[in-house]
Amino acid sequence: MALKDAKAGARNEAGIVLVVEALKHAFGDRFQTGQSFRAQHSHTTSYIPSQLPDGVLFVESSEDVKTVVRLCTAHLVPIVPFGTGSSLEGQVNAPLGGISIDFSRMNRVLEVNAEDLDCTVEPGVTREQLNTHLRDTGLFFPIDPGANASIGGMTSTRASGTNAVRYGTMKENVLAVTVVTAQGEEIRTARRARKSSAGYDLTRLFVGAEGTLGVLTSVTLRLQGIPQKIAGGACAFPSVKAACDAVIMTIQMGIPVARIELLDAVQMRAFRNYSGLSYEEKPTLFLEFHGTDETVALQTAQFSEIAAECGGGEFLWTSNEQERNKLWKARHDAYWSVRALAPDLGILATDVCVPISRLADCVTETQADIEKHGLLAPIVGHAGDGNFHVQLLFDDRSAAGIAVAEDFVARLNARALAMDGTCTGEHGIGQGKMAFLEQELGGAVDLMRQLKHSLDPNNIFNPGKIFRTTSS
Amino acid sequence: MALKDAKAGARNEAGIVLVVEALKHAFGDRFQTGQSFRAQHSHTTSYIPSQLPDGVLFVESSEDVKTVVRLCTAHLVPIVPFGTGSSLEGQVNAPLGGISIDFSRMNRVLEVNAEDLDCTVEPGVTREQLNTHLRDTGLFFPIDPGANASIGGMTSTRASGTNAVRYGTMKENVLAVTVVTAQGEEIRTARRARKSSAGYDLTRLFVGAEGTLGVLTSVTLRLQGIPQKIAGGACAFPSVKAACDAVIMTIQMGIPVARIELLDAVQMRAFRNYSGLSYEEKPTLFLEFHGTDETVALQTAQFSEIAAECGGGEFLWTSNEQERNKLWKARHDAYWSVRALAPDLGILATDVCVPISRLADCVTETQADIEKHGLLAPIVGHAGDGNFHVQLLFDDRSAAGIAVAEDFVARLNARALAMDGTCTGEHGIGQGKMAFLEQELGGAVDLMRQLKHSLDPNNIFNPGKIFRTTSS
Repeated sequence: MALKDAKAGARNEAGIVLVVEALKHAFGDRFQTGQSFRAQHSHTTSYIPSQLPDGVLFVESSEDVKTVVRLCTAHLVPIVPFGTGSSLEGQVNAPLGGISIDFSRMNRVLEVNAEDLDCTVEPGVTREQLNTHLRDTGLFFPIDPGANASIGGMTSTRASGTNAVRYGTMKENVLAVTVVTAQGEEIRTARRARKSSAGYDLTRLFVGAEGTLGVLTSVTLRLQGIPQKIAGGACAFPSVKAACDAVIMTIQMGIPVARIELLDAVQMRAFRNYSGLSYEEKPTLFLEFHGTDETVALQTAQFSEIAAECGGGEFLWTSNEQERNKLWKARHDAYWSVRALAPDLGILATDVCVPISRLADCVTETQADIEKHGLLAPIVGHAGDGNFHVQLLFDDRSAAGIAVAEDFVARLNARALAMDGTCTGEHGIGQGKMAFLEQELGGAVDLMRQLKHSLDPNNIFNPGKIFRTTSS
Repeated sequence: MALKDAKAGARNEAGIVLVVEALKHAFGDRFQTGQSFRAQHSHTTSYIPSQLPDGVLFVESSEDVKTVVRLCTAHLVPIVPFGTGSSLEGQVNAPLGGISIDFSRMNRVLEVNAEDLDCTVEPGVTREQLNTHLRDTGLFFPIDPGANASIGGMTSTRASGTNAVRYGTMKENVLAVTVVTAQGEEIRTARRARKSSAGYDLTRLFVGAEGTLGVLTSVTLRLQGIPQKIAGGACAFPSVKAACDAVIMTIQMGIPVARIELLDAVQMRAFRNYSGLSYEEKPTLFLEFHGTDETVALQTAQFSEIAAECGGGEFLWTSNEQERNKLWKARHDAYWSVRALAPDLGILATDVCVPISRLADCVTETQADIEKHGLLAPIVGHAGDGNFHVQLLFDDRSAAGIAVAEDFVARLNARALAMDGTCTGEHGIGQGKMAFLEQELGGAVDLMRQLKHSLDPNNIFNPGKIFRTTSS
């Protein structure tokens, strides 16, 4: 009966009561059921309304995770892992209630192997914490999604961000994970070797699974040497098309650009207002180059030529750290700069990704759509990957406003899919993009369901995310 | 009854008879059951004895694949995909008989998107065929496992080879695949965007699955721009340790070396004999650098300094294509050069991969093992990845000789696993490494079994590979 309810998408009240009592008993004040804790653990930067868990467990070890998983398996109660709450598609919501597992106290750097350029961390370690820890080793972890997200969360959403064009995404940078399975056992998906063809790629199965297949307890990451020289700058273009042409030439020539970000004119206006950047309100590329004095000089000179060929303005670059930081601080604050444009409106941050040959078309058509519908929606893009974000300002307090936003997102995704793109380059599916995933991959989603059912037959791991499970 | 037999690991004679008759009827002489065809399709460079399929179907389209999968599903008959037969761990053997699907006629390059640096090919396209096709586009496909393998086979074993240190393995270079599932339906795992976080990473699940989860019908690959300048050369070292130190420094400094191959002194002797290379019989690195005139000059100068610091000899490099080709032709012919050392012995080609900090230890201890047991077994390694191959010459016609070889492989794998390495960097598990996979990943192999059971409940896809399935 409880099983049927959990599977059919109803709250399993009886099971939840039992688990809440057991966790209170086992964990004392490491388990919280107060309204403010529960609200905080479903409140995110997502536009999707909060759905609160029934309690929040602050885990401190793999043993804690095993305990809660076994308990929740026994009573068919959902488990929703929580890193820092910076996900954007409702990944930490608890539509059927259940237990939020907070990883903020499971935040130890377990091992750094400098010679092998790898490290192993607990899921609650944040990106900034890790890089602070690594500072004296000459190494850094390159993936940078903007928010100071947790490594567990970044792993689970297959995060990428500004550096991915050079260093890859979480998919390329996770060497192994340990996971607690539905049976409450901890397994390790791979050894520390940099490559392997030993059986199915379980590591990649958990990277991007959004907590629906098991609960991560550690992540082994590839690291990079801190470049001897970093230079960055900005370059304005007469059109999105011209900027994208420069991106395509840069990628095709194999220039190992570390970041190449597209900002549209509206976003540049937001930066002027919020971050005091003095650039023109034109389509602009922000770039960064990593290397030695010689290679960075070569790369910036090559890019300057490309920019000129594509009708771009002067490429102003600097290796001064303070100036660079101002640029990338503004880029990181894009969300807040957009919010400041209309503080009384809601904000819907969404992303799609297309083959780079179609990026200019996709952005330009999206801008035309925004204009046609009288919307305000700055665009920023990880242009080297063909991935871009639209931050739509909308009236989130009226049904009409919400409908306008939803229609816009539907058109955006249809456009990206028609260009052989994907409905999300890095935010994940969560609750927000389930319909688009079906449109994108059709029958392949049934395979995902089969995999989910095989590893989590009772649907206790983050239910109601990525796809609707069958009630069978 | 047939179901039980197929699952329990016995030949399903009745089903095989039915499928063979049906395929003869449906495909005429595209389906062959003669001894020579059957023998050829299980005869590989593996040391594992051949196990013949009952017939060989030369497929020409996805529709052909669907037809044979549906037929084999209906009658519970095994399917063994066959590319070029260059796999090394018995991947194309048919221990329970069944149908070999030969992809040599499904070898069309379906699409090249030069601006996006990607292409889509049928599984039977070989590496060399693809690069010949691409020649006029200025692009190339970098993965090079030595053999002129098929893209389908390379995908299925997660191949990598000499260029992986710079360009990654098949894991990083496959964007999407189409697959015929056990239900006989064709699905596509991803769109053509360069990154995505749209649901589970089905692409990576099929990369390296060795044909056990479905049958590939196309592969979408990332391509690279042909470098303006390529330079390569060789550098001898006083010891394996010194050579490995040079490799570690090269990787740590972020020098984007395109190939960095370790050859031990015995292998260098084999090259002198077979390929007429005149280098000394000392531990040696073969290197290649890709870039522009300027970056290649910088990289070779940096490496020369590192080599000198590690006690290496002069680094002799050239950008002359003929001279470079002689070097890499020798490297590609390593298997044949070893065979020529003792033409009357069998050869067991095996690989392991360890964190690069342990590569020198692992190679040196393996050399000591070889010497202690009076064996002849040259070593070549993709040193930048920590991956190395041992080619053991052994008496494959006596039980005692085979036992000596098996004991050696067991010690080699135990050594690599004790160093947090993997039992295979690029050859895959096949039939040869099932026991080592269990040692390496323990409980994680049960997850693989669950995944296999969910996608292939009747165990028709390449049964008897990677792990033993449960008889449940």
